[in-house]
Amino acid sequence: MRAAVMRGGALVVDEVPEPEPRSGEVLVQTLACGICGSDLHLLEHTEQFSAAAGDLSGSTIDPHRDLVMGHEFCAEILDHGGGTARNLPVGSRVCSMPTLIRDGAMAAVGFSHDVPGGYAERMVLTESLLLPVPNGLGTERAALTEPMAVGWHAVAMAGLTAEDVPLVIGCGPVGLAVIAALKLRGAGPVVAADFSAGRRALAEKLGADIIIDPARHSPYGAWEEAARASAQGLRAEVNPLTGERLLPPGVYFECVGVPGVLDQMMVGAQRGCRVVVVGVCMEQDQVRPLLGIVKELNLQFVLGYTAEEFALTLHHIAEGDLPVEPLITGRVGIDGVAGAFSDLKNPERHAKILVEPWRA
Amino acid sequence: MRAAVMRGGALVVDEVPEPEPRSGEVLVQTLACGICGSDLHLLEHTEQFSAAAGDLSGSTIDPHRDLVMGHEFCAEILDHGGGTARNLPVGSRVCSMPTLIRDGAMAAVGFSHDVPGGYAERMVLTESLLLPVPNGLGTERAALTEPMAVGWHAVAMAGLTAEDVPLVIGCGPVGLAVIAALKLRGAGPVVAADFSAGRRALAEKLGADIIIDPARHSPYGAWEEAARASAQGLRAEVNPLTGERLLPPGVYFECVGVPGVLDQMMVGAQRGCRVVVVGVCMEQDQVRPLLGIVKELNLQFVLGYTAEEFALTLHHIAEGDLPVEPLITGRVGIDGVAGAFSDLKNPERHAKILVEPWRA
Repeated sequence: MRAAVMRGGALVVDEVPEPEPRSGEVLVQTLACGICGSDLHLLEHTEQFSAAAGDLSGSTIDPHRDLVMGHEFCAEILDHGGGTARNLPVGSRVCSMPTLIRDGAMAAVGFSHDVPGGYAERMVLTESLLLPVPNGLGTERAALTEPMAVGWHAVAMAGLTAEDVPLVIGCGPVGLAVIAALKLRGAGPVVAADFSAGRRALAEKLGADIIIDPARHSPYGAWEEAARASAQGLRAEVNPLTGERLLPPGVYFECVGVPGVLDQMMVGAQRGCRVVVVGVCMEQDQVRPLLGIVKELNLQFVLGYTAEEFALTLHHIAEGDLPVEPLITGRVGIDGVAGAFSDLKNPERHAKILVEPWRA
Repeated sequence: MRAAVMRGGALVVDEVPEPEPRSGEVLVQTLACGICGSDLHLLEHTEQFSAAAGDLSGSTIDPHRDLVMGHEFCAEILDHGGGTARNLPVGSRVCSMPTLIRDGAMAAVGFSHDVPGGYAERMVLTESLLLPVPNGLGTERAALTEPMAVGWHAVAMAGLTAEDVPLVIGCGPVGLAVIAALKLRGAGPVVAADFSAGRRALAEKLGADIIIDPARHSPYGAWEEAARASAQGLRAEVNPLTGERLLPPGVYFECVGVPGVLDQMMVGAQRGCRVVVVGVCMEQDQVRPLLGIVKELNLQFVLGYTAEEFALTLHHIAEGDLPVEPLITGRVGIDGVAGAFSDLKNPERHAKILVEPWRA
């Protein structure tokens, strides 16, 4: 079958072996698969990525071996392997966490040398992890379950209270998923910042209330203004010395993942702020712990989602509670994957490009 | 009056102006004042310290101006200023948070150019912040309220549950205060690690259950062993794939404050671990956010304590619940302060040296 293959640090179109479903697995046709920032990272920083993944799962990525990426997919069942319950018939559209449980171990679909990810015509998936795509939910929107689940999980890990005013730094797909999850949970006002006008426009579509261009205004100043206005209606402690109303501590989401951003956010943060680090910075980064100490900051690093969060996210997309349509800015076939990787470096033009391997 | 004065990056003994209590203030005689790691930091890294303090309080420390340090004190009331309630008579022994509330602003006693700290014969304090030292509690033990409150606060900020197994990296005064607070809260087993045999002996006296020399054994390996043993008796989730019992996430306390330690702890940490950063690292530090992300670590930076925590710590010391006696390893007069600063660089010999300005 055809696939976009990561080979020697580049993406090439080639024929790869047809995957065969083993016991408990199904064979599926890939209908749509989003390109993730992690995929761009993996292509550019294969060695660091491999080291980190090995740290997590014990499995490593070998830069010298072929790999078919793609872990944000919606697919259609073509065949059932042995030992399957077959509750979902051939032809069913499904989503799945990008995990294959095989021989009591877990393989990361899209980051594995053993099985292909969604940049191939077909994949094998674990039957017990399949979620049917509800009738009426378009395939492309269903394919956004995975990235939206990342935002949902990040917000869940933030432990929001009614008083919290969130600030989202970076409005790429991760930041947009965080904004949508914040709005669905009733948090707000949501302050969001991005240097790109295109991404600020998307932030507005996803529901951000106050949208800042950091080249013109401080996101932290905007957050403080919003927090002060929001605190008026809520219980807020008062500084016994000055009588000034104390602001509830901020909850900041780092959705950029570039060296220096975390330190910048620690400089901008108010005392007692929680910083949820969702952006994946692959490089060595510098922080000044003293900044964290004098402000008693909390840094919560987050990754992925639970199975429950993944299923809930699909449900919310189907119900129309998470507005994912605006994220989709492009579609390519297998031949277009390498070009799409380049295009995604321009934040002005693109948020999420879907790979649709059946496209000519 | 006489004081040990920080002047031009050194400590010199000199006469300084007698402090005069203003409205709401009392004049006290310093009975005992501990030397804190922060004081050593301030002397060595005045510029960075000043920048950080300014960030916190708006006030700055000017390396070109005299400053009398000392913020861990027990004192005796000599006189009351105007507008005081005089509930505590002259001769009362008192402790206080090292804060002077004057003209609606707060000065940090021991870090201020405006008022002397405890390395001087006399100080002025805010009457409303004074806590009487209970009868039967020795002055020297009372002087340890401040550093012990730092440990108490750090443990409070850790949000411990019954399942948590704490690991304390570094057994200087901060680490020892954390160990004592952990034991008083019933946490355990408490695993503690320090390269110094002297400090490991102190850790044992303060109640640590498992004490590791990192030159010989991995503290993280020791933690895992302890956590595995501890989890046997508790509810612990089981990995559905392997049937292996999952460990409750660790709670690690960083009590060293030297560049590189935080990164080391992030390497050693298990998935889901909380790292409470109590050690004050004055220098730029390097961390790899990716380590935090793949393990979903939480870094909680902490500083100081609340007024309630300070009062509670004094109470616990008076009740004998916090064994502080072993920490006191030396006593000097004003003439001995500079020498004590040098001596404190040897972890084998010293934990806490008390300055007793009345000593010849």
